[in-house]
Amino acid sequence: MLLRILDLSGIAVFAASGALVGVSKRLDIFGVCVVGVITGIGGGMIRDVLLGITPPTSLQNWPYFATAFAACLVVLVLHPEVRRIRAGVLVLDAIGVGVFATGGAGIALASGAGPLAATIIGMITAIGGGLLRDVLVNEMPLLLQRDLYAVPALLGATTVVLADALTIPESVGLAVGSVTAAGLRLLALWRGWNLPTAPRIA
Amino acid sequence: MLLRILDLSGIAVFAASGALVGVSKRLDIFGVCVVGVITGIGGGMIRDVLLGITPPTSLQNWPYFATAFAACLVVLVLHPEVRRIRAGVLVLDAIGVGVFATGGAGIALASGAGPLAATIIGMITAIGGGLLRDVLVNEMPLLLQRDLYAVPALLGATTVVLADALTIPESVGLAVGSVTAAGLRLLALWRGWNLPTAPRIA
Amino acid sequence: MLLRILDLSGIAVFAASGALVGVSKRLDIFGVCVVGVITGIGGGMIRDVLLGITPPTSLQNWPYFATAFAACLVVLVLHPEVRRIRAGVLVLDAIGVGVFATGGAGIALASGAGPLAATIIGMITAIGGGLLRDVLVNEMPLLLQRDLYAVPALLGATTVVLADALTIPESVGLAVGSVTAAGLRLLALWRGWNLPTAPRIA
Repeated sequence: MLLRILDLSGIAVFAASGALVGVSKRLDIFGVCVVGVITGIGGGMIRDVLLGITPPTSLQNWPYFATAFAACLVVLVLHPEVRRIRAGVLVLDAIGVGVFATGGAGIALASGAGPLAATIIGMITAIGGGLLRDVLVNEMPLLLQRDLYAVPALLGATTVVLADALTIPESVGLAVGSVTAAGLRLLALWRGWNLPTAPRIA
Repeated sequence: MLLRILDLSGIAVFAASGALVGVSKRLDIFGVCVVGVITGIGGGMIRDVLLGITPPTSLQNWPYFATAFAACLVVLVLHPEVRRIRAGVLVLDAIGVGVFATGGAGIALASGAGPLAATIIGMITAIGGGLLRDVLVNEMPLLLQRDLYAVPALLGATTVVLADALTIPESVGLAVGSVTAAGLRLLALWRGWNLPTAPRIA
Repeated sequence: MLLRILDLSGIAVFAASGALVGVSKRLDIFGVCVVGVITGIGGGMIRDVLLGITPPTSLQNWPYFATAFAACLVVLVLHPEVRRIRAGVLVLDAIGVGVFATGGAGIALASGAGPLAATIIGMITAIGGGLLRDVLVNEMPLLLQRDLYAVPALLGATTVVLADALTIPESVGLAVGSVTAAGLRLLALWRGWNLPTAPRIA
């Protein structure tokens, strides 16, 4: 139940981030909703396609879609206010990264994916929506450039796969992984941590 | 039979629109064909992947692919003339939107998708090719910005799903949905209708 | 065994090309690895999704992923040196195109794809990684613009499908197709061959 609420919170926050980008890019209201919904459920859709779960879960179960859509509507009406609570949005976004990465890895394991596939698919679940958002609005994805964003996702997914390999109960893996990933993401935001780039050519 | 002709017409027109964009972007003749074919059959390929229909129908049945390819060759040879009949191309494109959206929703229902999934997948069938085209040539998709393009697609798909829910014969749903979607698209073009964008921040 | 080595070499070279692009774009070290790995295994992942092979082979078998990842690390440490051996990289890349296109077509036939689908999926296997790389770093794909890159891939895949139709042993088709495709690619590089673009409007 808690997991479900966190999952829907993650979708809502991701969708809101997509809708905010759409508003900044001056998309029309439908375009804002398309980009927002894809950002919210796109990571899970890529996960499902890679696992052969068709049609994707987020289209077969209306609460996922409805949550993403509602978040877009809220942004359309209240986007100046949403920007002002940026700190709160970032915290929810970090939780979303954790929940998506661990949940994605768990679903992959349950679908018969091996440890490596489950780890990568978990990470993709968390970062896929943001990648699709940036590709759609024709931006180079920020998370590839300097944001410490994919590493927490990878860490969360890895935790779930390790827990499974060590036959630790899944709920423990999901909880520890989500908290670790969200915590690292928040720490990175708070301290301004970035990964280095490759050294320039001398 | 009529549906099949409309379906192939839609593929031809979508492919031609992709090829025209490729020509404007100064792609080489093979690049023009790649972008054109993807624009023509890409929406249906995304639909098939989301529904688990593999390999995609448009690759397993040569008439789809051949139609898209032939349209690209026509554009390569005759693109100045194709531009001049822009009005005709826009009418065919509107019909393509209607046929793809309703056909996509119908195929999704037949594959076991629920009402929401069928609606969204129908819309994706109609707009997916154009989105792939714009992403490939590194443009922000116009249909997200201001074109009233996705809304007719959504309307057409919704009509088919509603007809199915009301146990109205599928052919009626397909016909009414296609005509409604194409009609709204043409009306929007004729009257210059656009959706609003979100209000700017004061 | 030789095929396996060529396959992994192709993945390594494609991944290195993606990582080099990531370094030029000043991505952080994780972003460089994400783009590099996707370039290396992305074509095969698209192939698997189109064929319904889930989870994708390259995620279920660690040597593929590990090879791509190792190539990215080498580029991160040695990218000035890697640039200097550009001629060697281009030769390996040409071999990669040949091996991926023929191998992709062979896997597609074995998965029940028809001749057309196998040809197209073989070509997509060879060019898909490069397309994903360019889309992710927000560049218009060079291979659409003027590089003679997709044509050799198409030729290699076609050879395999023809050999299958003529009941020539698969190994012969794979070998002839790979050598032909790689040879044409190298010839195009050596002689500076490009395809024409469509004539400008007078």
